[in-house]
Amino acid sequence: MLKPLFVAAALALLAGPAFAADLEANKKIVVDFYEKGLNQKDYDAAAKYFGPRYIQHNPGAANGPEGFKRMVGLLKEKFPASHNEIKRVIAEGDLVVLHVHSTRQPGERGRAIVDIFKVENGKIVEHWDAIQDVPEKAANDNTMF
Amino acid sequence: MLKPLFVAAALALLAGPAFAADLEANKKIVVDFYEKGLNQKDYDAAAKYFGPRYIQHNPGAANGPEGFKRMVGLLKEKFPASHNEIKRVIAEGDLVVLHVHSTRQPGERGRAIVDIFKVENGKIVEHWDAIQDVPEKAANDNTMF
Repeated sequence: MLKPLFVAAALALLAGPAFAADLEANKKIVVDFYEKGLNQKDYDAAAKYFGPRYIQHNPGAANGPEGFKRMVGLLKEKFPASHNEIKRVIAEGDLVVLHVHSTRQPGERGRAIVDIFKVENGKIVEHWDAIQDVPEKAANDNTMF
Repeated sequence: MLKPLFVAAALALLAGPAFAADLEANKKIVVDFYEKGLNQKDYDAAAKYFGPRYIQHNPGAANGPEGFKRMVGLLKEKFPASHNEIKRVIAEGDLVVLHVHSTRQPGERGRAIVDIFKVENGKIVEHWDAIQDVPEKAANDNTMF
């Protein structure tokens, strides 16, 4: 009765982009991009991860690296103490998801963010997100994270 | 030079929860739960996927299955034509992420949602999300999806 195990193993072997080693590499790329760009606010260090395109789905940012550059510049100028704490990282295929607690000032309630990045050949090429303010009161005691 | 491939394969074999077959099963559970609960608005059909606990991090919902039940009831009563369109599904380990376009009335701009579910032994035991209104105007032409 080990058959399903071997089928699963064969599937895992065939699923090129889902290799554990690739997923870990993709996660490392996205986490480093995020840390460098949004926490260290070092655009140039983050920008080395951009691929030949950067398709932006965040409706507040212009398409391409320029939109990200402007956001990093804004954070650096207006919210130098802002911090994005990565709570969990989830990867499959060419996608990496970050669940993040973002604050503009230390101690504020901040915002819950889920970012989705697409990674191709070790480069970040696309980004989606959903951003929600952490409310003052909640219907449960579990926090948003 | 096939060594890295075999290391990756060995890792994939060892990583029990990351088996492709498990991930596909977990995705199927979460997608069916979502379709039954939020689109068909059939709480009982969705509730069969609840495990011994349901830890709710959505700040608007009470902890446990009861909070979800109330939400399904509300949708059924106030927004019977509401629809949550799943745009992408991303799974790793015991987590399944859904990227969703949610509308309460057909044709409205709606909201971008990213849901994260934890699945244990084929049952849904925890949920986080971030929800953002799709704005009327965006700084890029890529949509939020």
